[in-house]
Amino acid sequence: MTVKLTFNPYDITIEVPEGENLLRVASDAGIHINASCGGEGVCGKCRILLESGELDAARSGLVSDTAWNMGYRQACQCRLVSDAVIQVPPESLLDRRTLTRRRSGIALRPSAIDLDALKRSGFYHPAFQKRFVKLRPPTLHDNICDLARLEQGLARQHALGSLTIDWYQLQKLGRVMREGDYEVTATIDYSRRRYRSPHLLNVEPGDVTQSHFALAVDIGTTTVWVQLVDLAKGEILDHAADYNGQISYGDDVITRIIFSQTDQGLQKLQRSVVASINQIMHRLLQRHQLSPNDISHLTLAANTTMTQLLYGIDPTYIRLAPYTPVACSIPLARARDLGLELPPHVFIYCVSSVSSFVGGDIVSGVLASGIFKDPRLTLYIDIGTNGEIVIGNEDWLACAACSAGPAFEGGGIHYGMRATSGAIEDVSINPDTFEPMIITIDMVKPKGICGSGLINLLAALMEADLIAPNGRVRDDLNTPRIRRGESGREYVLAAAPDTQSGRDITLSEGDVDNLMRAKAAMFAGYVTLLQNVGFTLQDLEQVILAGAFGSSINIENAIAIGLLPDLPRNRFQFVGNGSLQGATLLALSRDLLAEERRVASMMTNFELSETPGFMNHYTAALFLPHTQMELFPTVNERLQNQRDKNQ
Amino acid sequence: MTVKLTFNPYDITIEVPEGENLLRVASDAGIHINASCGGEGVCGKCRILLESGELDAARSGLVSDTAWNMGYRQACQCRLVSDAVIQVPPESLLDRRTLTRRRSGIALRPSAIDLDALKRSGFYHPAFQKRFVKLRPPTLHDNICDLARLEQGLARQHALGSLTIDWYQLQKLGRVMREGDYEVTATIDYSRRRYRSPHLLNVEPGDVTQSHFALAVDIGTTTVWVQLVDLAKGEILDHAADYNGQISYGDDVITRIIFSQTDQGLQKLQRSVVASINQIMHRLLQRHQLSPNDISHLTLAANTTMTQLLYGIDPTYIRLAPYTPVACSIPLARARDLGLELPPHVFIYCVSSVSSFVGGDIVSGVLASGIFKDPRLTLYIDIGTNGEIVIGNEDWLACAACSAGPAFEGGGIHYGMRATSGAIEDVSINPDTFEPMIITIDMVKPKGICGSGLINLLAALMEADLIAPNGRVRDDLNTPRIRRGESGREYVLAAAPDTQSGRDITLSEGDVDNLMRAKAAMFAGYVTLLQNVGFTLQDLEQVILAGAFGSSINIENAIAIGLLPDLPRNRFQFVGNGSLQGATLLALSRDLLAEERRVASMMTNFELSETPGFMNHYTAALFLPHTQMELFPTVNERLQNQRDKNQ
Repeated sequence: MTVKLTFNPYDITIEVPEGENLLRVASDAGIHINASCGGEGVCGKCRILLESGELDAARSGLVSDTAWNMGYRQACQCRLVSDAVIQVPPESLLDRRTLTRRRSGIALRPSAIDLDALKRSGFYHPAFQKRFVKLRPPTLHDNICDLARLEQGLARQHALGSLTIDWYQLQKLGRVMREGDYEVTATIDYSRRRYRSPHLLNVEPGDVTQSHFALAVDIGTTTVWVQLVDLAKGEILDHAADYNGQISYGDDVITRIIFSQTDQGLQKLQRSVVASINQIMHRLLQRHQLSPNDISHLTLAANTTMTQLLYGIDPTYIRLAPYTPVACSIPLARARDLGLELPPHVFIYCVSSVSSFVGGDIVSGVLASGIFKDPRLTLYIDIGTNGEIVIGNEDWLACAACSAGPAFEGGGIHYGMRATSGAIEDVSINPDTFEPMIITIDMVKPKGICGSGLINLLAALMEADLIAPNGRVRDDLNTPRIRRGESGREYVLAAAPDTQSGRDITLSEGDVDNLMRAKAAMFAGYVTLLQNVGFTLQDLEQVILAGAFGSSINIENAIAIGLLPDLPRNRFQFVGNGSLQGATLLALSRDLLAEERRVASMMTNFELSETPGFMNHYTAALFLPHTQMELFPTVNERLQNQRDKNQ
Repeated sequence: MTVKLTFNPYDITIEVPEGENLLRVASDAGIHINASCGGEGVCGKCRILLESGELDAARSGLVSDTAWNMGYRQACQCRLVSDAVIQVPPESLLDRRTLTRRRSGIALRPSAIDLDALKRSGFYHPAFQKRFVKLRPPTLHDNICDLARLEQGLARQHALGSLTIDWYQLQKLGRVMREGDYEVTATIDYSRRRYRSPHLLNVEPGDVTQSHFALAVDIGTTTVWVQLVDLAKGEILDHAADYNGQISYGDDVITRIIFSQTDQGLQKLQRSVVASINQIMHRLLQRHQLSPNDISHLTLAANTTMTQLLYGIDPTYIRLAPYTPVACSIPLARARDLGLELPPHVFIYCVSSVSSFVGGDIVSGVLASGIFKDPRLTLYIDIGTNGEIVIGNEDWLACAACSAGPAFEGGGIHYGMRATSGAIEDVSINPDTFEPMIITIDMVKPKGICGSGLINLLAALMEADLIAPNGRVRDDLNTPRIRRGESGREYVLAAAPDTQSGRDITLSEGDVDNLMRAKAAMFAGYVTLLQNVGFTLQDLEQVILAGAFGSSINIENAIAIGLLPDLPRNRFQFVGNGSLQGATLLALSRDLLAEERRVASMMTNFELSETPGFMNHYTAALFLPHTQMELFPTVNERLQNQRDKNQ
């Protein structure tokens, strides 16, 4: 159900899902409403006037009886329940001219896998299948071993010849066959192509072909995601996530690699990520009343360091020049051997990586996004501490990792923080009053600014002309929002009384420098890689943004600051957690499982530091949006318009 | 060095190895010397007179100064050091006529593997090979993963393409490559044929191609044998054995299967045999200053129950009709997963079995003895509680297990015992005086009679005409050696003062009945199996005796009692511990490793209880040697001669 919402005096009407939060919807629609407390309802600045229709509004002491009766509400406390018309009060009003600020209309939620499309295209074909067989009970004249009897049955009833089997299955085979009165369900793994024959993965008593599940796991440096797949129904049942327990040993891959070299460090890291997976998995299984025995297999994608840590492989050389991983493809491993609380028939199918810094998470995303079979020249981006880039199409793929630094994860930014509760994620600034509108994750009092918030803030500062293309904060304005701090001038985003810490939240020139270096590394990465394969930015037919961070980026603002190239907006796509989706797809498609290694080996790795041109491109990109303004025509135009209007 | 030894008054001269024991040599030569204490030197009955030459003789108080100076010695206390002539004193003398008693001249030691012959015949070709590679260190322009670098090196320097690898190797690969300064030794496993590619089993720093070892293990119900093989030199370095620790849970397979069904029983049995292997293995490794890391792989043969117990596979259905094992071929298992104290690169290659009672030990023996590639019709026998029989040639093989019962292992025989210290293993009886000559294992005071001793005793009783063809003990002789006991009449083999227990050691009619049933089951097995494949005993071109017990059998006596068929003696061969030898051969020959499964599947299993004719043949064999005397012409002739002479 959607409702129609009209913002006056702008006379802008949008259609949005019922139940959404009014402040958030306004922000998404590009309507500025002053807001200092992130949406918690304690600053009382985001007042609007309900002109008609209804709002499901919570009331705080900040709205007097008189105001309430007149129709005043706090936007952050309102949920949309019907069509409504609201009036943005004068103190929040932007000059009409500034409403050129556009938000890209691309959905912010990670896109789910379109299983129906997968089925239509013939890709839905799990490598793991359950087969029910009725066997003849043994007699003294036919007393071949249980395994041979089962193999005979599978050969006769399912044309499955010369199977391989894992010896652990034999520990239960005798019991299972008798428990099922010689009627059993065999799980067959067709993925082990290089071993020629299908593999008999599991045997269960009776007909349980309808109970057939897989787990897909994405191990991020910060977050571990687990997806539960119903292979019998062809459905993604559920997912769950939690922090990667390794966080307590270090925030990023480098600190974890360093920790792995301490006494027992590798084991501690190995065990803690396994504990995270176990915990999330059990939560998911419990929620669906399943047991670990119902799981047939586990597919997994992770960056190279996370992969090596999971398998207890020393990651030391990932971080030392010349940056070699131990192995880009990890052979099948019994889940239990790694400490996962799963029965012995469950093996881990791990997506191959390309190099130390282009890992299985990226390959998995490439698989999920289908670039490797798309004729269009595509740029695939996963922004994090190491921003990974893939460029290519069905014929070739080139990739690189950019050392963007931790700025987009809040590192090196004074009030930077991860995208957790209290992080400012949405910002707009009234170019006349310089008053901000801030929205935080969970709409609580602000604590800091997360990566997407930083991009939005930087773009808003540019647009309000509070910051110059070289990153310097204006010093000629008479506003308390700008002042001199420890790291140059700074903009005060939230004042002490409105913040969780009771201290002002600011963005300083020092912070801006760090953000510029981060975005410059990424941008120089695209340009360098394209140049080395003979293309330019304009040749890109598609840009895919992956990762939790990528999914929360406001494209328009990311282009405005020069993090993303200035291309027609319809060329941009969000793939969401591409790594998790790729892992899930592997569980669903035998062909993809067979292709993953080929796709990884298709991806030519470039070490940017060793690639001609990179340093020049990097230096050129240390500007907002870029020293070559012709590369950002729409940004240029918008800023120009803005400046014209402001004059 | 051999010495010549002449026995007077018989004027028999034999050539024997220097250092041998005189009493044992006499026994082997068929010379009877009264001896009651098994060879411990305490009965003083085995006195002989040294006529010329020298003997290295220990002196006890049982030989007076006068006697000593005259040249009297206790035969059991003498070691041969030079040519010598001795006189057997009158009290030990047999009537010259009885010297027709013949011993087969076949060596009693288990035959070793003829490695040179193996090499000459092209069979010496271990499936596991070490390859040294020098790799180029990585640079920023060539920073592929360590594994790919190693694979490249192996492909270029040893033409090894598309290897498979076990993920555990990756845990050390990075370190190994750097420790060896990019010079490493790879162990390649060529045995995994069904997986198409060679397998990269292990990686070590530097050139260690000359340090390459394997273990071959035979798990007997009673004894565990481990052989240490040097694959670099092509030598069998050493072996060691010990009791199977499972003995404390039951003597034979049936009691162990029953125990396995008790709470934690299976785990206890699994752990105890593993503990035995570990202990023997460590002893062997220590003796040669090797570490478990020097071992490349482990080959193993055992009967079906021992195999299932080792892998923790419930053996319940082996013992219940219709007697199905869970699996006849066990896939590769990581030694460590079973609890063996070996590094993760060591896998177990287990010889396939045929059925519940024809196990991998028999298949291994068939491999070792080469029947499967021999054109001659061969009978292969392993006598134990379950006597296993294989009949066939290069084209076909038939096999069966006979429930001989535990008689030949000393079970069900009042003074029966295992072949351990103090067991009477050799017996002869003076047909005139009925005085015995007994020799025990370790030549200590007798404790009981082992299987081979029982065969020899039964034959001696027959030859001395103390026992009738129906197994009844003569009651018409006036000798204290024969008396009535609790189980019918009995022969007193050793009197209380000469035994360890201080009680008489006897063989009763009840014991004889049990022995007859055991030998009848075996004999009926050969005949039935032959009949079912269209042959008779006379068609047998070769008889191979395997197993510890088989190796200690006196062929002549075994034929005399009807346990073995009466064929020309040169058709008999001892293979020794065929199971261990087969396991060792698998470590040495890639072709045999590839053939073992085929050979096992070549062996058609017969359930004797279900096979026509068996019960009749069994009943017919409940006689000494057999109801159809024409089946035993040489025995018949000898007994006839004996009777003529005795008259």
